[in-house]
Amino acid sequence: MAHLGIDLGGTFARAAVVDPEGRLLSSAKMALNDREPLSVVNAVTEAVASACQLASSPSVTTCGVGVAGQLAGDTGLVRVAPNLGWRDVPFGSLLTASLGRPVRVVNDLSAAAWGEFRCGAGRGVDDLLVVFVGSGVGSAIIAGGQLLTGASGVAGEFGHVKVVPDGRGCGCGERGCLEAYAGGHNLIAQMREAIAAHDAGSRETSLAALWREAPETPLTPALLETAALAGDPVARELYDRAASLLSLAIANQVTVLNPARLLLGGGVLSHCPGLRSAIIAGVSKYSSRTSREALAIAEAELGDDAGLIGAALLAA
Amino acid sequence: MAHLGIDLGGTFARAAVVDPEGRLLSSAKMALNDREPLSVVNAVTEAVASACQLASSPSVTTCGVGVAGQLAGDTGLVRVAPNLGWRDVPFGSLLTASLGRPVRVVNDLSAAAWGEFRCGAGRGVDDLLVVFVGSGVGSAIIAGGQLLTGASGVAGEFGHVKVVPDGRGCGCGERGCLEAYAGGHNLIAQMREAIAAHDAGSRETSLAALWREAPETPLTPALLETAALAGDPVARELYDRAASLLSLAIANQVTVLNPARLLLGGGVLSHCPGLRSAIIAGVSKYSSRTSREALAIAEAELGDDAGLIGAALLAA
Repeated sequence: MAHLGIDLGGTFARAAVVDPEGRLLSSAKMALNDREPLSVVNAVTEAVASACQLASSPSVTTCGVGVAGQLAGDTGLVRVAPNLGWRDVPFGSLLTASLGRPVRVVNDLSAAAWGEFRCGAGRGVDDLLVVFVGSGVGSAIIAGGQLLTGASGVAGEFGHVKVVPDGRGCGCGERGCLEAYAGGHNLIAQMREAIAAHDAGSRETSLAALWREAPETPLTPALLETAALAGDPVARELYDRAASLLSLAIANQVTVLNPARLLLGGGVLSHCPGLRSAIIAGVSKYSSRTSREALAIAEAELGDDAGLIGAALLAA
Repeated sequence: MAHLGIDLGGTFARAAVVDPEGRLLSSAKMALNDREPLSVVNAVTEAVASACQLASSPSVTTCGVGVAGQLAGDTGLVRVAPNLGWRDVPFGSLLTASLGRPVRVVNDLSAAAWGEFRCGAGRGVDDLLVVFVGSGVGSAIIAGGQLLTGASGVAGEFGHVKVVPDGRGCGCGERGCLEAYAGGHNLIAQMREAIAAHDAGSRETSLAALWREAPETPLTPALLETAALAGDPVARELYDRAASLLSLAIANQVTVLNPARLLLGGGVLSHCPGLRSAIIAGVSKYSSRTSREALAIAEAELGDDAGLIGAALLAA
């Protein structure tokens, strides 16, 4: 007996066969050339076929799929998936029809957190907070061994807590969200703004030169960390603001939720070790004493497999 | 069959007999003349005896007690109870010995929230956030029908989220907590500071005159609301800061937890209707769109009985 886990991002679809203990038996990955829902369903179906063939395991019983987007509860409807350009796509029923088996659609961060909880750096505790800082900022909460979903399935929407009332515009359409200051896409947007200001002669920053030295290289949060730690004042401002807003917001979640473990994950944190260290120091400083005494901070350890394993086990 | 519920505050001990549906059959209240643990145990024991006699219900099966303080998980040990002046008091075992039956000790706000959830303004939903603004600021979280306790039993410690890094000192020994700006005790302390500044000639405020007009009346948050809404700039600053810090912090909890219902309770909010309205407006403004679309905001409706009923049902 085994379970299918699928991870649907903005650029790849991945599928895996996972045993009941969460061990990955096989996986397959397929680039998405086209984000039209039926094309994505076909790509996922092909990835599933490959993974099943590789696992030589015909007895797959259940199927879970993690999608980077906002879902309408447990209905399989994807309300908004910015990376896929989707709005109100009945992905669950489309995929069920294509695979010929029921699928459970879950949020990708919830899936990844569940994977870490069951088989990764979250093993052995009942109360776990997982925070991801990648292109966006998100979290998932496991309390008393249960994944918190909330009344409409969006619990953990940590990137959209307001940290600067009426502040910087966010991709969600509101203002002053944590993600608008500290998400990867927005860090890069702020770097672009700083370079444009430099080019317009209003305030110098070494970001402009660093970026043009390697024109092949895209702007990245890692470049911001390099410039900030080298002492560039403009980079330092952006970087310190992201670090302190993340620290305070995560610390406050720790105070309210009192988790036994906090896992930090996501691309920005894995490429910016200085930012990660600053957050760990800030969380230790600003969370309440009793909460921080109960807390261990660790790194997510399953990487991309967390979402596959978690989606499989959440549907099992 | 019935259950005993006890609510232990700083000035009174109350006991009630509650039926399995949470209906209050009888209750008794006893002033605490002395906060020494054994005296409190005796007062509670007397209140219990009265309540049992009034209920003419000999078949009480379980006993729960809510204490305004920080507990060591489910052990019955009260770590810190500022209103009682207690530190590391094994209240559960003392009370068990005195009553001759096992008791479950829970946090008073958790008990009150559970009472509202089962029998009050929280009926009918699975995901409930209850925020109390009284002398202190606290919350309790019910998610998926379960009371969130956290790894060391302090989940919901909402008054100690940091809202001003390294800001005003708080009774908990740390700085910049929400409670240090918006809790009743601290609102009064800030009013005293403003009156002292007025008396020293540094900045005029009508709070000084308002207070002295009625020297019998103690300073209260309601007086602050009166002065602020009448246009006193000093009162307005304190009041607006409390309102906006509470709004933003509660909104962010709504964003992260995605509750179906938010209950607002506690003495400060019931005596300051303007503050309550400002918080409702702020929560609607600053919570994420999807979270606020799922949210209804209501007033706690059981008053002092919530804690008695909740403690009884949590232990049942």
